[in-house]
Amino acid sequence: MTRQHLKVAVIGGGSSYTPELIDGILRYHDEFPVRELVLADIEAGAEKLAIVAELARRMIARSGKEIALRTTLDRREAIAGADFVTTQLRVGMLEARSLDEKIPLSHGLIGQETTGAGGFAKALRTVPVILDICRDMEELAPDAFLVNFTNPAGLVTEAVLKHSRIKTVGLCNLPIDTKMQIAALYGVEPERVFIEMAGINHLHWTTRVLLDGEDVTASFLKTLASGKGLTVKNVPDLEWDAAFIASLGALPCSYHRYYYMKNEMLAELASDFERTGRTRADEVKSVEAELFDIYRRPEVTEKPKQLEKRGGAYYSEAAVRLMKSIYADKGDIQVVNVRNGGIVSCLPDDASIEVNCVIKADGAHPLQLAAPLSPQIRGLLQLVKSYEELTIEAAVHGDRRAALQALTVHPLVGDAALAKTVLADILEANAAYLPQFATLVP
Amino acid sequence: MTRQHLKVAVIGGGSSYTPELIDGILRYHDEFPVRELVLADIEAGAEKLAIVAELARRMIARSGKEIALRTTLDRREAIAGADFVTTQLRVGMLEARSLDEKIPLSHGLIGQETTGAGGFAKALRTVPVILDICRDMEELAPDAFLVNFTNPAGLVTEAVLKHSRIKTVGLCNLPIDTKMQIAALYGVEPERVFIEMAGINHLHWTTRVLLDGEDVTASFLKTLASGKGLTVKNVPDLEWDAAFIASLGALPCSYHRYYYMKNEMLAELASDFERTGRTRADEVKSVEAELFDIYRRPEVTEKPKQLEKRGGAYYSEAAVRLMKSIYADKGDIQVVNVRNGGIVSCLPDDASIEVNCVIKADGAHPLQLAAPLSPQIRGLLQLVKSYEELTIEAAVHGDRRAALQALTVHPLVGDAALAKTVLADILEANAAYLPQFATLVP
Amino acid sequence: MTRQHLKVAVIGGGSSYTPELIDGILRYHDEFPVRELVLADIEAGAEKLAIVAELARRMIARSGKEIALRTTLDRREAIAGADFVTTQLRVGMLEARSLDEKIPLSHGLIGQETTGAGGFAKALRTVPVILDICRDMEELAPDAFLVNFTNPAGLVTEAVLKHSRIKTVGLCNLPIDTKMQIAALYGVEPERVFIEMAGINHLHWTTRVLLDGEDVTASFLKTLASGKGLTVKNVPDLEWDAAFIASLGALPCSYHRYYYMKNEMLAELASDFERTGRTRADEVKSVEAELFDIYRRPEVTEKPKQLEKRGGAYYSEAAVRLMKSIYADKGDIQVVNVRNGGIVSCLPDDASIEVNCVIKADGAHPLQLAAPLSPQIRGLLQLVKSYEELTIEAAVHGDRRAALQALTVHPLVGDAALAKTVLADILEANAAYLPQFATLVP
Amino acid sequence: MTRQHLKVAVIGGGSSYTPELIDGILRYHDEFPVRELVLADIEAGAEKLAIVAELARRMIARSGKEIALRTTLDRREAIAGADFVTTQLRVGMLEARSLDEKIPLSHGLIGQETTGAGGFAKALRTVPVILDICRDMEELAPDAFLVNFTNPAGLVTEAVLKHSRIKTVGLCNLPIDTKMQIAALYGVEPERVFIEMAGINHLHWTTRVLLDGEDVTASFLKTLASGKGLTVKNVPDLEWDAAFIASLGALPCSYHRYYYMKNEMLAELASDFERTGRTRADEVKSVEAELFDIYRRPEVTEKPKQLEKRGGAYYSEAAVRLMKSIYADKGDIQVVNVRNGGIVSCLPDDASIEVNCVIKADGAHPLQLAAPLSPQIRGLLQLVKSYEELTIEAAVHGDRRAALQALTVHPLVGDAALAKTVLADILEANAAYLPQFATLVP
Ligand SMILES: [Mn+2]
Ligand SMILES: [Mn+2]
Ligand SMILES: [Mn+2]
Ligand SMILES: [Mn+2]
Repeated sequence: MTRQHLKVAVIGGGSSYTPELIDGILRYHDEFPVRELVLADIEAGAEKLAIVAELARRMIARSGKEIALRTTLDRREAIAGADFVTTQLRVGMLEARSLDEKIPLSHGLIGQETTGAGGFAKALRTVPVILDICRDMEELAPDAFLVNFTNPAGLVTEAVLKHSRIKTVGLCNLPIDTKMQIAALYGVEPERVFIEMAGINHLHWTTRVLLDGEDVTASFLKTLASGKGLTVKNVPDLEWDAAFIASLGALPCSYHRYYYMKNEMLAELASDFERTGRTRADEVKSVEAELFDIYRRPEVTEKPKQLEKRGGAYYSEAAVRLMKSIYADKGDIQVVNVRNGGIVSCLPDDASIEVNCVIKADGAHPLQLAAPLSPQIRGLLQLVKSYEELTIEAAVHGDRRAALQALTVHPLVGDAALAKTVLADILEANAAYLPQFATLVP
Repeated sequence: MTRQHLKVAVIGGGSSYTPELIDGILRYHDEFPVRELVLADIEAGAEKLAIVAELARRMIARSGKEIALRTTLDRREAIAGADFVTTQLRVGMLEARSLDEKIPLSHGLIGQETTGAGGFAKALRTVPVILDICRDMEELAPDAFLVNFTNPAGLVTEAVLKHSRIKTVGLCNLPIDTKMQIAALYGVEPERVFIEMAGINHLHWTTRVLLDGEDVTASFLKTLASGKGLTVKNVPDLEWDAAFIASLGALPCSYHRYYYMKNEMLAELASDFERTGRTRADEVKSVEAELFDIYRRPEVTEKPKQLEKRGGAYYSEAAVRLMKSIYADKGDIQVVNVRNGGIVSCLPDDASIEVNCVIKADGAHPLQLAAPLSPQIRGLLQLVKSYEELTIEAAVHGDRRAALQALTVHPLVGDAALAKTVLADILEANAAYLPQFATLVP
Repeated sequence: MTRQHLKVAVIGGGSSYTPELIDGILRYHDEFPVRELVLADIEAGAEKLAIVAELARRMIARSGKEIALRTTLDRREAIAGADFVTTQLRVGMLEARSLDEKIPLSHGLIGQETTGAGGFAKALRTVPVILDICRDMEELAPDAFLVNFTNPAGLVTEAVLKHSRIKTVGLCNLPIDTKMQIAALYGVEPERVFIEMAGINHLHWTTRVLLDGEDVTASFLKTLASGKGLTVKNVPDLEWDAAFIASLGALPCSYHRYYYMKNEMLAELASDFERTGRTRADEVKSVEAELFDIYRRPEVTEKPKQLEKRGGAYYSEAAVRLMKSIYADKGDIQVVNVRNGGIVSCLPDDASIEVNCVIKADGAHPLQLAAPLSPQIRGLLQLVKSYEELTIEAAVHGDRRAALQALTVHPLVGDAALAKTVLADILEANAAYLPQFATLVP
Repeated sequence: MTRQHLKVAVIGGGSSYTPELIDGILRYHDEFPVRELVLADIEAGAEKLAIVAELARRMIARSGKEIALRTTLDRREAIAGADFVTTQLRVGMLEARSLDEKIPLSHGLIGQETTGAGGFAKALRTVPVILDICRDMEELAPDAFLVNFTNPAGLVTEAVLKHSRIKTVGLCNLPIDTKMQIAALYGVEPERVFIEMAGINHLHWTTRVLLDGEDVTASFLKTLASGKGLTVKNVPDLEWDAAFIASLGALPCSYHRYYYMKNEMLAELASDFERTGRTRADEVKSVEAELFDIYRRPEVTEKPKQLEKRGGAYYSEAAVRLMKSIYADKGDIQVVNVRNGGIVSCLPDDASIEVNCVIKADGAHPLQLAAPLSPQIRGLLQLVKSYEELTIEAAVHGDRRAALQALTVHPLVGDAALAKTVLADILEANAAYLPQFATLVP
């Protein structure tokens, strides 16, 4: 770790989330003394980058911390010599996300940003870009950590683990959000709660809840987990059925609603879309426009309250906590995405998983699970992981066969003919962002 | 093996399939010299049992073989001292099957005898009865083999492997049927074809085809497997898409249509039912009535041609080939259902699998697969196996939680709310056959 | 965790090590506020127990801490309601250890307290007593932790994991000692050193050394590990060969000398014994006599310096650090003995292993290893573990077959005829302590 | 399989074993119609090659079979277009073997051709030559099978599996010899006996014996296996101890005497050598001289009786049975050396193992074991396999570190200092045959 001059590069620095990250960096600056912060973005994002950077500079100035902030449209310049590279990019921007939501809906399928056919399209666009970043890092910052927030974060992490030598940890704010909500339900400080999460990004189960070291999982599931108890901003918060939760024996994550409540979720998405002609991406566009209007105002020198609507609760918390624990060799426990290596024994060794890890200077060390996963959990997890494996193959090699199989087996598609049609639409609509598939297109 | 006096007990001896079995026993009598054959059935099947037995006696007489044929309504009497016990029973008879097909359809789901919600209901009814038979065997014929044809045959085999000490092999005619069809497509004797099948009953993939020892899998998949090539009587024979087969890299089995062609299959089943008000069970009832009319005729002394319509091609072939290879310690290769023990490395050790086995006097010895299963195959297989595991738990212990989870995760249901509703219907409609669930019913 | 009234029971409380433990409890009393401390021992140890207890009382009085100290000859009384039960008993006392060292030597074998034929004899005597303690705990303190220091600590821990429901962690001072020595070699605080140990008790390898988060393993092995660098009191400290350490790619533990330097170690033990007629046990007897003379003196109110000779450096440190981390749900990393569950992938899931664990209120959570173990390490580890597995079978069931195989395969015996002779001697000499073998003795 | 013109290449064709192989080929010519047989050898073996070839021609002429026999000193010519390549070469000839036996003895260790330090030296010499042959095959006969008899046959097979794409099966006559002896003990035809062997070459255990399909293992071990019952020519036939066999629960192979009877075997080897100044290699030299005298006689037109002394009982039987089963896609069961792939679950997937396999045209398909191996067997097997793994690394890469570790962990060495000394001697004495170690030698 370069202790003298700690440098962080943010790829996709023009994101509306950046003020959140700046806020976190400032809050934890004593423990994580960033000296140089480079926000990189692409040409198309130059204007947003400039706006965000100006706000960031005002936030830094207000804090009195000594951080040199720079912007660049040259990614390699940002990466060179960095200690940490974080990615919060969105290939194709919100326009592409909008299509990820609408194309599946047009075939009677759930259209969602990170899972199902929508998440699949996003993965095809994103994985090659992340691997390009890794190649830059291998050349220009070979010892740096890639802290990846870009969705689908688990799948992207697995792609990096399989196709690059760069050290990486995949991150999502859902685990810390869940822990915070559980602590709030019990009315205690988060430190008094220990939870065991097992699974993969956006498909993990909370299998154990300990309060002051005592296992309260059974009572927790009985009294608290049903109903609206736990939720996140990005996912419609339909209520869980108590009998279902009891039979599952674990707390599902918010995204599980797309699986366990598939029919209801589809109905809701479809009727919303029919009614408004808009999807979540379109709403986000409005939120973002509104946010950037605020960011522009010179009097704004703090992260604006309105950012919370965006759905990134604890986003900076998660990112900065991870980086500072690596920096300080802290040894605390965080739920992140890492190489499996036998921890989730029903998944391949080289899969990425999302579990409790001890964060040390050399990275994240996953902890043994208290027990092997139940059959309830195991089968669905394995199926979605096989989808991820196939999708990585498709994304890296432009492999249409893997792509067709990935969509076919995904529980939110689950039909070969349908998969074929949806795949054709996705490849066509995203052609500009999928050069790896170009050679075979007639 | 009792060499002096070979005794076979047939539980569910009144089945319309029995003449098929008798035919096989007579054909192979030189190598498998059955001396005593006991057909057992329940009171409700007494009349059919008598008809079948009379036909069987005429068939035996015609053959000139020395086989003592007896009937009984006391299962234990049939089992005592047997060398082989075969089961071809149907708990709840065709009436129950009819409901297995109709209840799911009424919820917009595929209703099928051995898979999905229908197969689930059949499993709940069947597993306890088979385990009762095993307990009788443990007492009265502890060294006998249970040759199980009763569907869902793979799930039932796993239940026996987990909950009894009886030696068992599960059987389906699909593997031999597939091999015969492949040989016919190449226009060669079946001996010249060697196929590797991997998976579980009614969900296996043919991953390798060898002709005269040469691996022809790629060309086989390219030229022959698409289209209607391979099919079985019990499953609507929709054509496979060539691009899909190519991307799968293996030949799916007939029942895979319910998964890979879920939408089209459901549409067909639903429209047939809407049009006719009948399901496959209702057709089978007609076929059976017709068959029994023929069986009754004294002039009939052979297996009638009409039996072929029933869908049991190679049924007796499969059953008698297995028993005679055990009897003769033959060492030939047959595809049967056995304990996994690491052969399909992505499934639990104690799962049942359907793969190539060497048949010796001590049972079936599975062979190593040429390569681990591809992700295309792995995920779906694992999910359905976790469904089977949960269903066995539900069937053996009357565990409603396991039942709800089993239906929820099954790819042909895949929604918790729907699973809950369907489960309620199934438990109510089958209450007479599900004593294990009785104690908790209000 | 009973927060109001923290009770610790020490089985074998009359041990000369007890003042060490008292010292630790007093030093950490703020974080681990023991209220009740019960020292239990057997009738034969009553006198030593009284002496030790008096010293302990003086130490407590001097510290001003409020701890009620009691002694008892009724183990069950000590256990009832305890939060922690620690074991530091020695079945057969030093007399038995003396035989454990001499019997193997008389057959030309290494005679050592915890490994080889000597450790085997100790295991046969100890395992049943520890399991009796567990049965008492299951009845009288079912939620308490068993903190086991009794050697062979790894084997004993595995026996408890396999044959009891009691939560247990096995402990040795070697890991912390090694870490302290490495820190001292680098001249840094121990917190700046992170080491990965992998293996089993008294047969672990230090596979990674990180200094301030940087991997310095290669240079560490090159410059520091050869020579006398690391050592412990209990094991003759022959120097490691630099080429050997380089080829091993890891730092062996002190007890590895019995394996890798088998011939030299045997020669030294044999010549010492021939020269002096005494073994280590006999020396320890002298040390103990001297220690108890000191303990008796009323003016002694602290742990005497002479205790260090006894070989238990960091003994209390290890024990109290473990208990206080459990008590405080601390989440720090300690190397302890726990159930494998896939962490050391080349050993059975139900084996005990000695690795880095996060210590939480519910026990020790092992961390993933950075990489699978090398073949250099793997084979020897697996062989010794199979010895442990067989020895547990022998110890629990009085199984002479398992006992003969255990000794035969142990690398320090390695010959069936020799194993048979040594086993006969061991069973005869220890007959008073091996009731489990009594029934079969003619 | 080239059905028109079946060609077999024999590398090391000048071996005294060749008439045995010719005999087998002639005996089975109807089923395995060899048309072209090429005996290849090196310059130094030209004379022996000529003598053997002349005898072979006389044998062929006498049989009236149509086989074109050729000799060559150009290995590549022999390999080009072959269907089977068999290897019976001996790098360094008997002179090197003599040293393999004497060098270890000079350090107080067992000196044996295929195991321990002697087998290690042989492996270092042999593996690179076999891999050169594989490279020739990849170029000149890419679809041919390598049937490897060259010792250490299991280790060599693993080297080929890991470092070449050539199809290979490793062979030893011990398994068939064992089966024949068991059949003889029962006085039955070999077909009535089915045995399960598990382990690796020259270290397999017979874990099950079935007679007419009935498991007679327990009684077999009790009544027949102790004493001299089973033995082979190459290994001094010390008697097994009945109690030891009972506790092992399996029949060890002949070479196990070097492990389980290490001390007695060493004593015998050492005293023989002291008495006679000769080892087994020296005896074999005499036997060979005698054999070649016989081979030279024009009136000899059959395999001479004296060949039996050489120790290759069933050698040709094993080799020709394997090749003809591959040729004929036979599907019978033979015990051969193949890739593990999970069959012996306690060994790495890419290890070679020696187990029952079904022999088909595409090679050998291992069968599932009836049960996982017991701890008695597991530990020793794993240790020796880790030795093999290290030895392959040493042999392929000239890796002195791996070499030192290989010898250190081997149970017949088991001491690092000793391993270092013996290794130095081996590398010096074999320098002419170990070019892979040359670059680092000063
Ligand atoms: Mn997320
Ligand atoms: Mn079937
Ligand atoms: Mn210790
Ligand atoms: Mn051999």
